[in-house]
Amino acid sequence: MKNIAKEYTYKIENELMDVYKLGPKLLVEPINHVFSGRGKRIRPLLTLFTSKTLGYNIDEALDAAISIEILHNFTLVHDDIMDKDKLRHGKETVNTKWDNDIALLAGDAMLALALKKLNTYSKNYLLFPTFTNGLLAVCEGQALDKEFENKSNIDISEYLNMIDLKTGYLIGLAAELGSIITEVDNEKTILLRNFGRKIGRAFQIQDDVLEIFSDTKTMGKSLKSDLLLGKKTFLMVKGENYNPGFIQEAKDMISKDYSSGITKIRDILINNHIYEEANYLIKSSLEDANQILSNLEYDTEYLKYFSNLIQNRKF
Amino acid sequence: MKNIAKEYTYKIENELMDVYKLGPKLLVEPINHVFSGRGKRIRPLLTLFTSKTLGYNIDEALDAAISIEILHNFTLVHDDIMDKDKLRHGKETVNTKWDNDIALLAGDAMLALALKKLNTYSKNYLLFPTFTNGLLAVCEGQALDKEFENKSNIDISEYLNMIDLKTGYLIGLAAELGSIITEVDNEKTILLRNFGRKIGRAFQIQDDVLEIFSDTKTMGKSLKSDLLLGKKTFLMVKGENYNPGFIQEAKDMISKDYSSGITKIRDILINNHIYEEANYLIKSSLEDANQILSNLEYDTEYLKYFSNLIQNRKF
Repeated sequence: MKNIAKEYTYKIENELMDVYKLGPKLLVEPINHVFSGRGKRIRPLLTLFTSKTLGYNIDEALDAAISIEILHNFTLVHDDIMDKDKLRHGKETVNTKWDNDIALLAGDAMLALALKKLNTYSKNYLLFPTFTNGLLAVCEGQALDKEFENKSNIDISEYLNMIDLKTGYLIGLAAELGSIITEVDNEKTILLRNFGRKIGRAFQIQDDVLEIFSDTKTMGKSLKSDLLLGKKTFLMVKGENYNPGFIQEAKDMISKDYSSGITKIRDILINNHIYEEANYLIKSSLEDANQILSNLEYDTEYLKYFSNLIQNRKF
Repeated sequence: MKNIAKEYTYKIENELMDVYKLGPKLLVEPINHVFSGRGKRIRPLLTLFTSKTLGYNIDEALDAAISIEILHNFTLVHDDIMDKDKLRHGKETVNTKWDNDIALLAGDAMLALALKKLNTYSKNYLLFPTFTNGLLAVCEGQALDKEFENKSNIDISEYLNMIDLKTGYLIGLAAELGSIITEVDNEKTILLRNFGRKIGRAFQIQDDVLEIFSDTKTMGKSLKSDLLLGKKTFLMVKGENYNPGFIQEAKDMISKDYSSGITKIRDILINNHIYEEANYLIKSSLEDANQILSNLEYDTEYLKYFSNLIQNRKF
């Protein structure tokens, strides 16, 4: 499975380099810079493996896979402007290497490129509206995320709704597009979409955990900014619920001394069983995802790759 | 004709207020703020009048008209970030009333809302790719516009290509969508699209002229920023072609004293026949547009409204 994932990651990366070669220099260069970053390519692989699971020719799913990967990268380029992030996938962000205006414009154009990739499918009349719902969901999730920056106490259900929109919806969309193109019935598409959303939820909470607990996680992007911006993560929201004032305290600690601050934050999260709770939620989301697969009358070996991936993820 | 335009402007504005009511406050508020601005609504009217011309029920074209108006407003919201504009349609811009991040995000969400408006049409499999090409063209035009900011001498053909992408393409798209939904043959759709593009070119060059020569033009948006940012307009490009150094000189003059500066700039443009040349190009673009209409076997009275509108436009 790992070999096929590798093979198709390679194909995806090759395809990405072919997407946009002719156009104004101020768009072609930053967009290809983004495409050449070393992302994990989880979303496009999910599209491909969903199609494959349903007996469809995996190579014919490539355009849909590229579409979802470009959509994902569009969100990163615009998010990096808002968060003033300097590093992404180990490379300088567009807002750093160029400027905010170019990043804004490159992101907009990427959205057009993502949509164009759906043109060729006979079911495109279904793919476009589905894609559009995903786009709106991501924007809404991002808007909630920003609203939360200025709110100290957030209910955990509000937080889960936000990450479902911001992350889960798009990973669900990756599976959904991979299913629609195979022309299976709508019921199966919904199951697969829901599978993707559960994977997405697990993935995001794991991201929250790794952000604080993994040292390697900080290599590809700048962690400090997220914490200092008051970004709400599962751990921070829970921490604040149990000890009001925790988020401000955590900010103060890491801005004073980052490495001793992060050690103290980890201790608090472990001692209050919040770390444990987060890991439990990751595990139960993955179980939900696998439960959905058991209702599909297909060999779901390829789809289990994603739950395994999350279980073994270290950064 | 004017009454029907007024009636449908009213309908368009009512429809816009219904587009996005439920969602995160940080999106609903700025998006409705944009929708409530008093734009000229030329693009959605062109969609409606194109459908009407082809014998289609004008009210059934409303969704397509709203889609194009939202797309247009998306470009304005993002452009205002880049140009740091403070006023638009007589109201504060989103980047001023809120901030750049909210404007970025609101624009992105507006794109999703624009696309959603195309879902209902049976020809949506054609509308989406056409819309997407328009989106990419606008981004490319905008990128060229930015490239030109740092280039002193630009060929007039490069300038025309830039405005065709940035403005003409979208006005062409307004007519194109209005034609596609009526299910006429592709040949007529292309004629109508080209009609729109000619109108768009005339409209943009007129905008360039009014920017310098109309006092009322400055009421709705801030003119100074465009000139000071080194924005290339037909007049500025031509001025620079004839007298290298003109653009820098013009910038210096208006930053020293705006009102005497603008008078001097006007004199130079008139004395060098550049003002005349611009007006000639507007006129010939409108003649081209009307020539296209004469090849259509329909009563094109409704479409002539747009060339008349430009001929009589004062701001």
